[in-house]
Amino acid sequence: MINKAEDFLKENERLDDLQLSGLYIIQNPEKFMFGMDAVLLSGFAHIKRGENVADFCTGTGILPLLLSAKTEARHFTGLEIQEESADMAGRSVTINDLSGKIDIVTGDIKEASKIFGRGVFDVITCNPPYDADKAAIKNPSLPKAIARHEILCSFDDVARESAACLVPNGRLYLVHRPTRLPELFDTLKKYKLEPKRLRVVYPDINKKPNMVLIEAIKGARPMLSIEKPLIICDTDGKYSEEMREDYKF
Amino acid sequence: MINKAEDFLKENERLDDLQLSGLYIIQNPEKFMFGMDAVLLSGFAHIKRGENVADFCTGTGILPLLLSAKTEARHFTGLEIQEESADMAGRSVTINDLSGKIDIVTGDIKEASKIFGRGVFDVITCNPPYDADKAAIKNPSLPKAIARHEILCSFDDVARESAACLVPNGRLYLVHRPTRLPELFDTLKKYKLEPKRLRVVYPDINKKPNMVLIEAIKGARPMLSIEKPLIICDTDGKYSEEMREDYKF
Repeated sequence: MINKAEDFLKENERLDDLQLSGLYIIQNPEKFMFGMDAVLLSGFAHIKRGENVADFCTGTGILPLLLSAKTEARHFTGLEIQEESADMAGRSVTINDLSGKIDIVTGDIKEASKIFGRGVFDVITCNPPYDADKAAIKNPSLPKAIARHEILCSFDDVARESAACLVPNGRLYLVHRPTRLPELFDTLKKYKLEPKRLRVVYPDINKKPNMVLIEAIKGARPMLSIEKPLIICDTDGKYSEEMREDYKF
Repeated sequence: MINKAEDFLKENERLDDLQLSGLYIIQNPEKFMFGMDAVLLSGFAHIKRGENVADFCTGTGILPLLLSAKTEARHFTGLEIQEESADMAGRSVTINDLSGKIDIVTGDIKEASKIFGRGVFDVITCNPPYDADKAAIKNPSLPKAIARHEILCSFDDVARESAACLVPNGRLYLVHRPTRLPELFDTLKKYKLEPKRLRVVYPDINKKPNMVLIEAIKGARPMLSIEKPLIICDTDGKYSEEMREDYKF
């Protein structure tokens, strides 16, 4: 498998073992590598058997790859605006022999409801660009800058298009920055995506959180469940039991 | 002190030692007793020397009493709609010899900006009724029901009147239920009270939180700081170091 898969690699790319069901992912360390945020989002998302799932801002396709192994969803569609990332994602789908289960679409999230139609997905996952400070970016054409900063899409775009593409009661799963939580809630509610679950991710119990995981349900009644804290490391600096047992860190 | 103070007690009331600077509080166990939420809010609120502070929904005055000892504020005004609670608060102020520092006003928070005027307080603290489910209440005239459920004021009233009574850049400190966080943020933002600090209070690190502490600043720019988790008990069931050291539990 590895030898064959390596034939699919382009310059500066490498093949990483996802340590899950024999899956591999193609990445380019000079462009963008998936992070812990994507892995935690794959554990936070509740996906049921037979559901039709989309991943917006899929990058190199980490979420559809992980979720194809972790869930019994019927199908995944990964949407990515950067051609190079989408190309890597597509080749990762091929080498993992998942072409029947995962489609990678190169396209703009701002057009998602035109591309896919309205009310078509049971679940959408999204690990969007976190940072709104476009002004701080030195080279906005760099793939890393596009993946991390709201250059090509805003959170309003993510929420609006997710709401349009979800079925009634469909679920949106997000990972984002704690600093933007009030705005995220505000924007989700604007598009009738009611925040229903929140998990706050703390590096350790003596630190401020660096991520929030959010489940919003289209058209649901207000009532948020904040879950127990997700602690990355124990105070001795080692990964917590949950990170080791549930996420294999 | 105690003997004299007890002359101020009415039927079924008792005098409780606040274990802080020799302060006492009059409470009636059959009506409403202050809880850990008020104590945690008194630690979360940042109050500077010389500031003019109001406490809305002050009940028996626990927050002005605690904050008079913990801070160097110039003056506190406690506003309470229930006459019996306001009467207890007033007598607690007297027995603690704080009449020059704390005023207790019997009045309706919905009229706060008429009672006090606009832009008059540097800081407002509020431990409001948590529960919106008016329908679930068997006897809405009971003091406990009024303190716990939104019978006489809604969160919208709290936010609107706080925004009106605060100076520009004035600070509002709240304790509330995690389940209502999206609505709280939404309502605060509606009145230009930007959520700036959030602390999530967990009974222990394996449990869902039961309280959130919020600082909102009038007219501030959006950027939330979620702080390290406030853990009430260690996993052995004993109060955490922070609860013992900072709150004397």
